[in-house]
Amino acid sequence: MQFSINRQVFIKSLNDVSRAISSHTTIPILTNIKIVLSQDELILTGSNSDISIETRIEQSDTSAQLVIGSTGGITLPATFFANIVKNLPADDLTLAVDGLRASITSGASAFTINGQDVRNYPQLPELDDVQSLSVSAAQLVDIISQTKISASTQESRPILTGIHLALNGNDVKAVTTDSHRLSQRIVTLTGTDAQVNADVIMPAKSFNELQSLLEGQDRVDIKLAKNQAVFDLGHTTFYSRLLEGNYPETDRLIPTESTTQLTIDAGTLLGAINRASLLSHESRNNVVQLTMTDGVVTLTGTSQEVGQVQEELQTTSVEGENLEISFNPDYVRDALRVFNGKLVDLKFTTNLRPFTVTPAGEVDNKQLQLITPVRTF
Amino acid sequence: MQFSINRQVFIKSLNDVSRAISSHTTIPILTNIKIVLSQDELILTGSNSDISIETRIEQSDTSAQLVIGSTGGITLPATFFANIVKNLPADDLTLAVDGLRASITSGASAFTINGQDVRNYPQLPELDDVQSLSVSAAQLVDIISQTKISASTQESRPILTGIHLALNGNDVKAVTTDSHRLSQRIVTLTGTDAQVNADVIMPAKSFNELQSLLEGQDRVDIKLAKNQAVFDLGHTTFYSRLLEGNYPETDRLIPTESTTQLTIDAGTLLGAINRASLLSHESRNNVVQLTMTDGVVTLTGTSQEVGQVQEELQTTSVEGENLEISFNPDYVRDALRVFNGKLVDLKFTTNLRPFTVTPAGEVDNKQLQLITPVRTF
Repeated sequence: MQFSINRQVFIKSLNDVSRAISSHTTIPILTNIKIVLSQDELILTGSNSDISIETRIEQSDTSAQLVIGSTGGITLPATFFANIVKNLPADDLTLAVDGLRASITSGASAFTINGQDVRNYPQLPELDDVQSLSVSAAQLVDIISQTKISASTQESRPILTGIHLALNGNDVKAVTTDSHRLSQRIVTLTGTDAQVNADVIMPAKSFNELQSLLEGQDRVDIKLAKNQAVFDLGHTTFYSRLLEGNYPETDRLIPTESTTQLTIDAGTLLGAINRASLLSHESRNNVVQLTMTDGVVTLTGTSQEVGQVQEELQTTSVEGENLEISFNPDYVRDALRVFNGKLVDLKFTTNLRPFTVTPAGEVDNKQLQLITPVRTF
Repeated sequence: MQFSINRQVFIKSLNDVSRAISSHTTIPILTNIKIVLSQDELILTGSNSDISIETRIEQSDTSAQLVIGSTGGITLPATFFANIVKNLPADDLTLAVDGLRASITSGASAFTINGQDVRNYPQLPELDDVQSLSVSAAQLVDIISQTKISASTQESRPILTGIHLALNGNDVKAVTTDSHRLSQRIVTLTGTDAQVNADVIMPAKSFNELQSLLEGQDRVDIKLAKNQAVFDLGHTTFYSRLLEGNYPETDRLIPTESTTQLTIDAGTLLGAINRASLLSHESRNNVVQLTMTDGVVTLTGTSQEVGQVQEELQTTSVEGENLEISFNPDYVRDALRVFNGKLVDLKFTTNLRPFTVTPAGEVDNKQLQLITPVRTF
């Protein structure tokens, strides 16, 4: 294998593929990046066995200035190789492979580094029973950003580390819950007539990496198979393992009525929550208290050792019964960030039942954040 | 004590004073910030016992909008208090102290936090036998930035963690060495007619903190006492402990002649050093090799396991005997950063003797970086 290429174009592709590569892996060769050169394109692959990213640089892409000497392949230590390429002196570089040794030259600089056989690198998954759909990248980012916050980061119940996606015709319902809070986003896909019926659970961590690749994209073609989802982003393809198992039924967790409602600017409440959590973070149980007394809403954070903060909230409207409720301010903060700059409704029943945060006036739970209170009495 | 103040002005002063405050201290009250209010000014103090920073906000400074209710003082947990002030909702804040409880109000937000008695806070040092001089802030930054790199960070020989400053009339000679390398900067102070003769060793760490306070300053008045240096920066005063003991004689370490000289752009050499160190950092001894063979200069970095890099350096001139020398690339990198963008001379004698990096053509060692090679044979 021998080729030369524009260094900046190569760095961009290395960065994209490196998102899938972790230095903590039980399969040593996955710390490497796979480089394969055919007659007309260069293919880079990175993987952490949960996700894989493959990107193609075509000879016909003039900005890449890809000049192919001879075809072949190798795998090279990913971080180390990327650092070399980023530090090379010239605008282009040449990579030549002789057995398992790669020489990288650029300007007066010549590196020789050891690689591993490309045949030992795991194959990308094959897909059976595929359903296809096309989604706007903006809608996909919207779904991810509004639900990833409530996905569990604990491996004790692996299924809860995923985003549950239920596709029904052109409707997508995405739900996450870590059993303390729940996020739900329902969208009707635009610009597509795909009629897909599917129920998949994708690791939220995978979605995080996908989100960064979606920047600047217009539409994404998605293929859903039994154990894999594949996102086609033009020159880059993103593979994610799907989680197996049944996602818990979540509809019944969402309250259908409320006895206390308040409407407030999300940013105003976020500021007060941040201040109250300065105190709650100093105490053992990290809880802040919200009270509604005859229309006056007060937020309180207390630490036995350090002190107290109290603040009357400037609300747009307050209705319903008096209330005193305690909750983890970090959960409410995450929820409010999703809606920052908007008016939100907070709907409570009792101080033992979950309460919801939704855009003001929305009644169909299409953008819903739910938080379970903390019992302090 | 009771006052109200513009929040942004207060945050700026809190940030300045906080540079002296460390959460790792053997004197618990030093994790607090000292706040003292007199009839006409507010004084904030922070200290880690090595350095102390005091800043004054005067009632006559209209931007501060300082309204004094009653005088007094308290000490408050520094990081926690600063976080509160940064998160307050309004443009101003009121601080009122009742006993050891401070209440901080801003907009609808009201904090109550516990402090400690201001009388338990250590006094700032008193100065005896003071010599005074005035220095341009730019010259002081020049001295610090060109010498701090070679100060030792190991406490095994405390004296080497300092910057040795020898003042003689209007000349200042600053030297640091960690016994592997040495930095020297000699300047003639401008805009001053002070005739100070002094020999002090100031902790390099203190100088680092001072450097950030010097931004935007024009001139600095310095007072040197037996165990303390005091830097007067207008509204802010910076105190540093001085190190006691005799600094080693360093002049005899600087070679007076050389047998191989090369002149090269500092940036060009820095790039090559960075590339070579990608390999040396992967090997056990972190050494790169420079060879000069009949005018051709080559830099080599090797790691038994990972590979090798070799690069012919583009020099401006090469003179003298052939040479093969090994050194720690991190030391040379630090030295070259000081001269980035300039042509530098590298002067070698044998591969066992220290070599120097100086601005091209300079012969009087006013800006000198010296590095001891590593014996690899």
